[in-house]
Amino acid sequence: MTQIPGVDLSAELEAVDAHWTPRVIARVNDQYVKVAKLLGELVWHAHEHEDEMFLVISGRLRIQLPDDREVVLGPGQLYVVPRGMQHNPIADEEVHIVLVETVTTAHTGSVVVEGTVPVEQQVGDFRG
Amino acid sequence: MTQIPGVDLSAELEAVDAHWTPRVIARVNDQYVKVAKLLGELVWHAHEHEDEMFLVISGRLRIQLPDDREVVLGPGQLYVVPRGMQHNPIADEEVHIVLVETVTTAHTGSVVVEGTVPVEQQVGDFRG
Repeated sequence: MTQIPGVDLSAELEAVDAHWTPRVIARVNDQYVKVAKLLGELVWHAHEHEDEMFLVISGRLRIQLPDDREVVLGPGQLYVVPRGMQHNPIADEEVHIVLVETVTTAHTGSVVVEGTVPVEQQVGDFRG
Repeated sequence: MTQIPGVDLSAELEAVDAHWTPRVIARVNDQYVKVAKLLGELVWHAHEHEDEMFLVISGRLRIQLPDDREVVLGPGQLYVVPRGMQHNPIADEEVHIVLVETVTTAHTGSVVVEGTVPVEQQVGDFRG
């Protein structure tokens, strides 16, 4: 019997050393699964053609949406930001999340800011 | 400020009343996110064209693979069964999982057994 290890979310999150810098840990069909640490605020942006799933592992994430709406997620809670919808994730404390998004999804959509991390950098040494 | 609720994995799992009966809780792009409770063994099967992601929320899941290989997953650990690979999930105790798979993925692949649950039934009252 050969044991094959799974992917451990805690271990993958430990390997993340910068905020707002997603790290690809798996691929399922045309979607990447990523982990990220968030603190503070990134930027309002949208992904025109792609939904984006946020699942909180620890901490409390606020996602501001248009029309003065807001999603608040605690551990074990998820939300899918629909394609085309402007959103602004805010972490008042450090938040650890899992993201699921299409392999081609740009980090901050059509907005490019200092903190924008190209997908190739998010992939890093993941080979899947 | 209008608060929009997220999807709570624990609450969604509480709403599952049968083992091996995935429940669709979200859609991200062309993938469904599902929760399921597993106990015992389902059947060896493969999905010819689709990867399938297993993430364990509680309990310990074994996934038997060809050539006498086995993946063992605890809480917070995930594994993607590549398309075309035969696999046999086994839950020696009750296991709660999240699944991510293409919206068209058949429950037990090309194998149909008494426990096979059609995708339409997994979707239930989810509208996304």
